[in-house]
Formats: sequence, structure tokens, C-alpha cells
Amino acid sequence: MPLKSGRVPPATITRLSLYARRLEELKTARTTVVSSDRLASLCQVNPAQIRKDLTYFGEFGVRGVGYYVEELLFQIHKIIGLNRVWNLGLVGVGNLGTALACYENFSKRGYLFSAAFDNDPRKIGTKLPCGLIIEPVERLIATCRELDIEIGAVATPAERAQEAVDLLVSVPVRAILNFAPAQVQVPEGVEVASVDFAGHLDRLAYHLTSR
Amino acid sequence: MPLKSGRVPPATITRLSLYARRLEELKTARTTVVSSDRLASLCQVNPAQIRKDLTYFGEFGVRGVGYYVEELLFQIHKIIGLNRVWNLGLVGVGNLGTALACYENFSKRGYLFSAAFDNDPRKIGTKLPCGLIIEPVERLIATCRELDIEIGAVATPAERAQEAVDLLVSVPVRAILNFAPAQVQVPEGVEVASVDFAGHLDRLAYHLTSR
Repeated sequence: MPLKSGRVPPATITRLSLYARRLEELKTARTTVVSSDRLASLCQVNPAQIRKDLTYFGEFGVRGVGYYVEELLFQIHKIIGLNRVWNLGLVGVGNLGTALACYENFSKRGYLFSAAFDNDPRKIGTKLPCGLIIEPVERLIATCRELDIEIGAVATPAERAQEAVDLLVSVPVRAILNFAPAQVQVPEGVEVASVDFAGHLDRLAYHLTSR
Repeated sequence: MPLKSGRVPPATITRLSLYARRLEELKTARTTVVSSDRLASLCQVNPAQIRKDLTYFGEFGVRGVGYYVEELLFQIHKIIGLNRVWNLGLVGVGNLGTALACYENFSKRGYLFSAAFDNDPRKIGTKLPCGLIIEPVERLIATCRELDIEIGAVATPAERAQEAVDLLVSVPVRAILNFAPAQVQVPEGVEVASVDFAGHLDRLAYHLTSR
């Protein structure tokens, strides 16, 4: 997909995601054209950064005009892969897992929880508020293959996270969103994004402590 | 607190938080001494990075020995501010907010949700599984002052996030963990950590799309 040779820096993708969200808001507000400066200011980056990030994928701005909102949004969605639906499978259906599987901001963006797994016999067969029925982890591989699940979300306790990840990898699922407070190992080609609640809180605590 | 002049880079604090969690695991496993190489490998950084991060705060390692687990952990906890309890106030008690307020990995590390606020009259007065009773947002300033709440957690819908942040800032709360999918503005001196679920998912989607 990238035009330039070599790997696109992960920070560029993180920023493209941010640009997309600001562009979605502009589109909702029926803004058709946005200047480079205005978009940069909305995204809290400088205009050169946006240009630099986009050059990996082509030429998008119009000199003296800026960016056409709908066109740029369409292109960024295509680059990231937001022009389609992704099926997600959840492993670990505690309070946090339940809230995540039913969080409507995910489905709004095309991330659809299609299956949920737990190893607690009392939970198997029960229905989540969003309608998903909890399956036993023994069904994980078969269900993920059947439903074409490509992203796994792990919300188990820390000590079960690696096991959950190994199971997902064997499907094979090649993208994992990890909510468990544990570092997990994956083979090459599998991407893990860890939502590090503790790291965020620790930075806030340090901010208050170091004043 | 830092020994060197100037501000400690945020990335250093993020890594200190990571070192602390690996050291906590080593302490639980009754490991008393850890070599610099071993700790670095557990944290997936290089040993020089650990040394560099720690020099902001003093001399911790012992040449030819490595680090005393309990001593280094004690020092890092003190640097970050994990040697005490922090009171948190939650704004927005939906499914996600409820799960977060009751998430035991927070309280284990000294982050204690002490109050929860919502503007839905049907929720006011109801009790969360963790025992918190939901208060109206009109009570936020008084309750936060009374309970010495220093960190705010925002789990409102995107369009209410700025309002929640403004209210917290007026307490004044100077550290905010933002779960809402919105960019929020704060005055100088207030730190915001945004848990960017969409950014994480978009990076995973890109990983799958660009293969």
C-alpha cells in the first residue's frame, strides 16, 4: 500500500487515525474544504507533519485550497482499512470485557464484536447486553475461523493473558488488542496493541507528585 | 524531585511505570537481585536505557550486581507517587465507566475510585457493584473537594467530555484520564492522559490492511 519504499512509521498511522477522526467531525459539520493550517490546528500538529505523513501514500492536498474533507477522509479510511467491517473476538468476559464488547464507539467505526469467550462455566451461554452469547474458550478456534474474526481483544486477568493470546494466534488471528495488565509475546507478523491503563495513571500520578 | 535540571521526558516516566510493574512481578516471585541485562530484557528495552532513565533521579544500580529488586521498586514507587493512595472521581457512569470504577487492577495499585457522577436522573442514588453510589454532577465540585479527589476519569459520550473536564478543572483537579473519544482542552498545569481505543484499533486494522 505505501508508495515510498520501507515501512511506514507506526506514529504516522497513529496520526492518520487522528486526522480521520477530526475529518469525520468536519464532515458531520458539513465542512467541504479545510485549509492545511486549520486541519493541523484541530489535530494539534503542524501542517508540515500532515503533508509528510500523507506523502507515504500519495498527493492529497490542493495548493492554495487545502484538503477536500470527504476525499481525504475516503483516502485515509482506505489506507487504514476503515472502508470495511472488522470482526472482533473477545476473550475474557468480565466487567471490562462486557463494557468493551458493547461499547458503541467501536461498532460505529466498523469494529464489530462478533464473538465472546470465557472459561467460567457459569458465564457460558449467557447473553451480553449487546446480544452476544458467551462461548467456552474451547470453541474459540472454530468460531473465529467460521466468523472470519481477524482482531482479538484480550480482557482476561493478567495471568491468563498469554494463554488467550496463544489461542488467538493459533486461529490465526494476526492483530490483538490487549487490555490485560500483562506483557504478552507473539510470533513475528502478529501485531499487539496494549491499552496500558496503569501507564497512563502512573504518568498522571507523577505529574501530581513532581509539582 | 528530579536531580538533573529540566523536565523529565514523559517517555521516561512511561518506562519507569513499566520497570515498576516488572519489578513488582520479580518481588512477588521472591527475586531479591536482578541483573541490569535481565531487567532490561523483561522490560524489552536495552540496559543503557534503564540506566539513563534512572539517572534523572539518582544512583540505583550496584556495579557487577545489578539492582536490588525491593530497593529499586521502593524508589520508583516514590518517584511516581505510588507510595500512597490516590482518590479518583469518575464522570459518566455508563457500562465503560462502571467497569473502570470497579476494575480491581486500579485499586491494587493505589488508584481508588471514591466518587462517581452522572447526569442521568435514573442513575443517581444507585449503587455500583464496587459499592460506589452515583451522585449528580451538580455535586461534583463539593464532593471532589470533600474527598480530596486529585485524579478525574472521564467516560462520558464524546460530546459531553469537555464539559466534564471543565467541571473537574474547576475543583481544581489537575490530572485527568480521558476515555471519551474526544480531544479536550485544559489550562496549563493540568495533565490529560487519553486512552485512545480508536487509535489502537486503527493501527491494528492498518497492520492487517497493509500486509
